[in-house]
Amino acid sequence: MENVKIIALRESVFEDNNADAKLLRQELSDKGCFLINLMSAPGSGKTSTLRALLPLLSKELSVAVMEADIDSSVDAEAIARCGVKAIQLHTGGMCHLDADMCRQGLRALAYEEFDLVILENVGNLVCPAEFDTGAHLNMTILSVPEGHDKPLKYPLMYESCGLLVVNKTDVLPYFDFDMDKLREYALMRNPNIEIIPISAKTGEGIASLAELILKKVKST
Amino acid sequence: MENVKIIALRESVFEDNNADAKLLRQELSDKGCFLINLMSAPGSGKTSTLRALLPLLSKELSVAVMEADIDSSVDAEAIARCGVKAIQLHTGGMCHLDADMCRQGLRALAYEEFDLVILENVGNLVCPAEFDTGAHLNMTILSVPEGHDKPLKYPLMYESCGLLVVNKTDVLPYFDFDMDKLREYALMRNPNIEIIPISAKTGEGIASLAELILKKVKST
Repeated sequence: MENVKIIALRESVFEDNNADAKLLRQELSDKGCFLINLMSAPGSGKTSTLRALLPLLSKELSVAVMEADIDSSVDAEAIARCGVKAIQLHTGGMCHLDADMCRQGLRALAYEEFDLVILENVGNLVCPAEFDTGAHLNMTILSVPEGHDKPLKYPLMYESCGLLVVNKTDVLPYFDFDMDKLREYALMRNPNIEIIPISAKTGEGIASLAELILKKVKST
Repeated sequence: MENVKIIALRESVFEDNNADAKLLRQELSDKGCFLINLMSAPGSGKTSTLRALLPLLSKELSVAVMEADIDSSVDAEAIARCGVKAIQLHTGGMCHLDADMCRQGLRALAYEEFDLVILENVGNLVCPAEFDTGAHLNMTILSVPEGHDKPLKYPLMYESCGLLVVNKTDVLPYFDFDMDKLREYALMRNPNIEIIPISAKTGEGIASLAELILKKVKST
């Protein structure tokens, strides 16, 4: 598709990713751009959640999306079809993005034009949680079919995220998913995590999620 | 639980994992032990598929399971409750296992006593596919809720696996999952991949899967 630019990311040269991420976060704040790092397992519904959210966020903010994938550009194309600026980042096999890889995408996007940029990280509950991308907010999605035990098995993801979206609530009747246990396990990893159940498919909870994100962006 | 041993894996010192994996595979073959490396995204149902399969496999073979996780030992406990020997491998934050980490688990298990050992790898569609563990068969599970587009996004996983299990077929009516497209995309990555749809929950397809695995073990 014509409206999707594909950026092949270079491996980073910085040894201290935490320091680099801090610099990037400050630079973004100075330019008035809020960055969200959206992470989840493959198939949790990152792209479909964004497609449901973007029309609400775009009413009040100028928004762009960076889609990170090892290969393919199906996600960026899906986002671009919402009328939102999207670029595709190819990680060249890498399982995560660090701050400098994120910076390469932001520059290609000309991030200064946007109030909010959302990075859709590689679908992976392990490695992305280890790397600060420079984002102001780390957000993760857990979908009902994956099960409520994930915070027990992937602790760092839940420790590093301020917002946990529980997606696919429309299929709750067909799975043995215990929302109370999920809350208990997630709060055990991070007592400050905010938890919002949604269904990107039916639209349930999307308005609350948009409201929460808008509040966070505006208060920064 | 008393019957689950937990092994903390050390990082490997071998530079050439491919050569090391080849050595391990030969050693296992010499001792008559078949090793399966089971990989998938988090929540695809690796453990529940094993729990459905193990009673059928155990009728004809002596079987043991190595459960790899970053943290927790819930999976090994679940397997041990089936009456099958299980050990838990803790990767210490590592997102995958290589051949030497696998070897550490096999030795702790005393693998020579078993005809078949199944390694349940860390839930991750990216990194585990990059490392040959020494297994005779790489097997991956994709669950219906994750979507049929995964072979487009995670090419190496499908290229490296000889067997693709499509789990959670019981919820096909509730998801926009196209089995024909999945077949097309998976075969595009690997023309020799065998595809078996199952439901670990209802038991559909489990007998066919057990039969296929038994055939592979016995013909090696």
